[in-house]
Amino acid sequence: MANSRKQAIETAEQLFRSQGYAATGVAQIIAESGSPKGSFYFNFPGGKHELALEALRLFAQRRNQRIEEATIASAGDPAEYVRFSCARMARDLEASAWTKSCLVQQLASELAPGDEEITLAIAEITRDWIGRIAQVLQRATTSRAQSRTLATAFLAGMSGALTMARVTRSKAPFEALAATMTDLIRHAASGLGSKVARRKAPKTVRASLITH
Amino acid sequence: MANSRKQAIETAEQLFRSQGYAATGVAQIIAESGSPKGSFYFNFPGGKHELALEALRLFAQRRNQRIEEATIASAGDPAEYVRFSCARMARDLEASAWTKSCLVQQLASELAPGDEEITLAIAEITRDWIGRIAQVLQRATTSRAQSRTLATAFLAGMSGALTMARVTRSKAPFEALAATMTDLIRHAASGLGSKVARRKAPKTVRASLITH
Repeated sequence: MANSRKQAIETAEQLFRSQGYAATGVAQIIAESGSPKGSFYFNFPGGKHELALEALRLFAQRRNQRIEEATIASAGDPAEYVRFSCARMARDLEASAWTKSCLVQQLASELAPGDEEITLAIAEITRDWIGRIAQVLQRATTSRAQSRTLATAFLAGMSGALTMARVTRSKAPFEALAATMTDLIRHAASGLGSKVARRKAPKTVRASLITH
Repeated sequence: MANSRKQAIETAEQLFRSQGYAATGVAQIIAESGSPKGSFYFNFPGGKHELALEALRLFAQRRNQRIEEATIASAGDPAEYVRFSCARMARDLEASAWTKSCLVQQLASELAPGDEEITLAIAEITRDWIGRIAQVLQRATTSRAQSRTLATAFLAGMSGALTMARVTRSKAPFEALAATMTDLIRHAASGLGSKVARRKAPKTVRASLITH
């Protein structure tokens, strides 16, 4: 039972992301997940809407894991983290033949703000991601507030880059975001006396930017 | 006839943005636009899909007009342009009680990439906007390529900030984007020898950043 439940959530997640929530019927989820109809409604008395909430939960967890993976892969270096994350998102999207959207963004477009439960769940996930990304970017900034600002702008950029990359079938939006953000991080790191700056910036740059 | 046609497009645009494409039926568009059913199908033999394409065209034109307005309001100053655009988007969204999405993003989420005609129309609009924004941001950069990179990242940020602001019912994402982008523009302007830099940056900063 637990297994067929998980299978249905996974199938729903994939279908919602590639063809949309409205366009996906329960019948298709049941057929593609291979779960018997009776057990489906036993598992999900709330039907498709409940599946959307569960799929959101699963998606958020997986993305949290990816944030951790990117943090490890970049050894906590903010610019490298940004580059790594953008490159991976672009690669994954291309691998899906430019079809897969972000589940959070997909359900936000289709169900928010009318659907209060989904809207609140998405707002919660968004806040959580900002907090996690802010922690990684902290080394490039001088205050918690600044890290959150940078993380918010980066998350917004990732979300928008995905929409743009999907319709233009190109990695360019992710590349532009990575270039822009790493430039900003380098600037912040050299100009604001953060840990990264103290470690990496040459003396001339550090001294000069005091005039900023 | 021309008037009832325009009215139907306007109504569709509003409904698609506040409740989504799938959730909006032709009957509601006809009822709310006040056009007789017969004339509706005479005007739009392609039904809702044709309306979506027309609404996209209208939306793109209006956004082009807004880009021009923001350029005039900011006297072509890139940082001021970014601040003005973010503040207006945030204000408009708040005025709609956090309901109105961007039509381009909405239809991209619901119809791309399966719907080739809509996907191509959105890709075309996206490229056009990048070109227009790049022109405004050119003063903060040293090359056409750099302007396009910055414009792409900014457009991605605006798109994502809208999604985030809509679900969190807060202007914070737009404020974060504006702060981040203006910081970057100041950095670019002072560091890269652009027109703005030549006019504004003090000598010490200009000289020192050659070490960058």
